[in-house]
Amino acid sequence: MQSFELLSQKFALHFDKRHFPASPASLYDPNEYFLKLGGKRIRPVLCLMGNELFGEISGDAWHVGTAIELFHNFTLIHDDIMDKAPLRRGMETVHSRYGQNTAILAGDVMLVKAYEELNKIDVQYLQSILSLFNRTATEVCEGQQMDMDFETMDSVGMDAYIKMIELKTSVALAASLQTGAILGGAGERNQHLLYDFGRKLGIAFQVQDDYLDAFGDPGKFGKQVGGDILSNKKTFLLLHALEKANPAQLKELRNQLAGNAADKVEKVLSIYRDCKADQWAVTLQNKYLDEALIHLEDIAVLTKRKQPLTDLAHYLIKREF
Amino acid sequence: MQSFELLSQKFALHFDKRHFPASPASLYDPNEYFLKLGGKRIRPVLCLMGNELFGEISGDAWHVGTAIELFHNFTLIHDDIMDKAPLRRGMETVHSRYGQNTAILAGDVMLVKAYEELNKIDVQYLQSILSLFNRTATEVCEGQQMDMDFETMDSVGMDAYIKMIELKTSVALAASLQTGAILGGAGERNQHLLYDFGRKLGIAFQVQDDYLDAFGDPGKFGKQVGGDILSNKKTFLLLHALEKANPAQLKELRNQLAGNAADKVEKVLSIYRDCKADQWAVTLQNKYLDEALIHLEDIAVLTKRKQPLTDLAHYLIKREF
Repeated sequence: MQSFELLSQKFALHFDKRHFPASPASLYDPNEYFLKLGGKRIRPVLCLMGNELFGEISGDAWHVGTAIELFHNFTLIHDDIMDKAPLRRGMETVHSRYGQNTAILAGDVMLVKAYEELNKIDVQYLQSILSLFNRTATEVCEGQQMDMDFETMDSVGMDAYIKMIELKTSVALAASLQTGAILGGAGERNQHLLYDFGRKLGIAFQVQDDYLDAFGDPGKFGKQVGGDILSNKKTFLLLHALEKANPAQLKELRNQLAGNAADKVEKVLSIYRDCKADQWAVTLQNKYLDEALIHLEDIAVLTKRKQPLTDLAHYLIKREF
Repeated sequence: MQSFELLSQKFALHFDKRHFPASPASLYDPNEYFLKLGGKRIRPVLCLMGNELFGEISGDAWHVGTAIELFHNFTLIHDDIMDKAPLRRGMETVHSRYGQNTAILAGDVMLVKAYEELNKIDVQYLQSILSLFNRTATEVCEGQQMDMDFETMDSVGMDAYIKMIELKTSVALAASLQTGAILGGAGERNQHLLYDFGRKLGIAFQVQDDYLDAFGDPGKFGKQVGGDILSNKKTFLLLHALEKANPAQLKELRNQLAGNAADKVEKVLSIYRDCKADQWAVTLQNKYLDEALIHLEDIAVLTKRKQPLTDLAHYLIKREF
């Protein structure tokens, strides 16, 4: 049984190679540039961990992990265009550096490359892995569309927001774990419990992401702190504040959202604190973390095999980056 | 043995249904809108014809045909964004009607849907079909990138242009035929001959496309005639004219390319005619058509089975739409 950190290092080594041909360089250099920016590689490691939960890690889990990471990078390249994001991990995004058209195409070919990687696995697993991968990819697109739709909506309910987060973020974490379980020969019940562990953990993870965007340490976070506030992005914190603010706070919050004052981030953070949105977010994270851990406990394998996943769940919720 | 027209009608009926769920409508309505615009559905019918060349059409060929058509529509949605095209088949493009971000995402989810459709086939063919599909999809992206690169290049050689056309257009036609052959149990030699037939036919097809954009009948063509000229697009005609023009014609052509005069289309067409680019294009089409037909002849099946493909090849080169 290997820890998340160890498998992360192993996966980073495995993934740190050229993935695309040299030519046409105008298409593939952007892809290589983006993959070199790194990242936490959480999803592929979840696939490896889901696989090791049921036995030794198989060669196929490395292929599927690679496919999952390529898929994730495809979504990031396209999301950055849609969000008009200049930076990712402190570096220029693909569309900023190479232009929008190339970024669209670089994303497209990255997605195809993910399917190429999937096609390397033992054919006995191919249909079930593809089926889960396709369903998840579709849901991720649906989640991104909902996220964009929310931008122009005056009010968004917490339930709708959580549904969006599940689609955009959670299902990819959940499916990564489940692909590992499928390749490990797990039964359906265990597969679904592991999926649900990942789904709940994903929501907790996003609460943390929203929290860090507002209250994170700029030196550790990588992205622009306060970016969500500047772009009026609906987040757990904003939705909670809009629900809980008193009339004076609500008026000030609406004023800030309507404008782009120089001290907008500072002012909105102050309202978040006054509404105790920061404390609430920590409580919410823990609720989802606890629910996730119950699903993990229910999986019918020896408890000691689950330790790395238990550790990871706690680690993801405490991260500062 | 069924004709292209008959299989076209059958495929149109088969494909004329809702492909996506109702919700989120903001994502899937654009996809349904775009698929309803129709199109020639050439590629899926090539899959059916490639399949029937070797036996009765199988259920799997309908799935693969559907996947190929969904893939083609994905490329069109994204290409229209990159080309800033307002119209497609006389109707608004997805990005014009629904915005660019949704168009990016609608294309993405259309591509995933294509893979969902592929995953419905008999598992014995899945790896080889996926392998060909992935390679072809990659090449189509490479071709589109080359096409964009050419836009900002001062001069493009005819060989490089033909390479781009092969990647962007031909390989998809060739691969459509080959998927049908794979599902029909054809041997490798027959598969590759059929692929090469499609590849050559695809180049002839693109020569015709470039020709129609310049000299087509606006009532039949669907797109804006002269669009390539207005956008200074490198085409077979422009590259030929740049090669063959005398100094006076070349000066006038360069002048027209540098500006956007009201009579730009008319003036450039006149130079094309003076350089006999129109006649040359017809000769070039016929050269590729002849080469395509030689590959078809070499395929080891009864000649009468090839008749629908022979007819189709002639039909595609004579089309006015």
